[in-house]
Amino acid sequence: MFPRQSLHRFLQVSQRRSFVNATALFQLGILNHVAIATPNLEKATAFYRDILNGECSEQIPLPEHGVTTVFVNLGNTKIELLHPLGDKSPIAGFLAKNKEGGMHHVCIEVDNVYTAMADVKAKGVRVLDKEPKIGAHGKPVVFLHPKDCGGVLVELEQR
Amino acid sequence: MFPRQSLHRFLQVSQRRSFVNATALFQLGILNHVAIATPNLEKATAFYRDILNGECSEQIPLPEHGVTTVFVNLGNTKIELLHPLGDKSPIAGFLAKNKEGGMHHVCIEVDNVYTAMADVKAKGVRVLDKEPKIGAHGKPVVFLHPKDCGGVLVELEQR
Repeated sequence: MFPRQSLHRFLQVSQRRSFVNATALFQLGILNHVAIATPNLEKATAFYRDILNGECSEQIPLPEHGVTTVFVNLGNTKIELLHPLGDKSPIAGFLAKNKEGGMHHVCIEVDNVYTAMADVKAKGVRVLDKEPKIGAHGKPVVFLHPKDCGGVLVELEQR
Repeated sequence: MFPRQSLHRFLQVSQRRSFVNATALFQLGILNHVAIATPNLEKATAFYRDILNGECSEQIPLPEHGVTTVFVNLGNTKIELLHPLGDKSPIAGFLAKNKEGGMHHVCIEVDNVYTAMADVKAKGVRVLDKEPKIGAHGKPVVFLHPKDCGGVLVELEQR
């Protein structure tokens, strides 16, 4: 069995520095957010604000992205609550399958989203858009196919 | 529409300080990890290490928790890849329903997990254990019922 001491050592050392993969074409950055889709934005916000005592933003309509969002600030990263806005919302299908809501995607930063997109494609990962699009934070993003990412929808965002 | 400027201001101000809810019985802390269950630990590790250039730990068997785990260090937080270990793994049911794997839970730190457990119960949230158990990091944790958390399995871990 892997000694518990080594696990703690890995985590301590890891969290003291940024990891640099010297031979890589792009560098992976921090977790920008975890996105949670919800059929009831008031109720989901109340859970994080009133039950868990978290800091929540107001509701922010992002019509160009088909969602209304509430940010939950966790200090090191954030949860983004997403609710459909308009009739072509990208989360409508997810909520049809997951009626109570659930974890929709993770967003991880990269130092160069264009290089990252080309590199992961070359390694056989399907990218859902032909070119990076401007995401909800005003930066270029791409989404990777969940079937090529262990069942997880992964968003890469320009740092 | 909520002005984009206000969103940026919320995020900038939020991320400069720890949020303290002065009237709350417990304080919510940082996102400790996002847990991703996988039917193939080698393949999931290869995705984060070889395709996304992330820093991954070795495989760490945690027989008392029924999983083998690999930590992906993202600098601000971590992804924990979970694979069943033994025949009573707590993630076996999830993988039977989600054959390719997927996001299993989020773990958020709290300043006092005992107070948090009593408080969220008093507010109507079902807690999956009668008492906090010692989690994979050696600290007390509780899991909250996904049906009371917007479809998301939430782990609260003592800071």
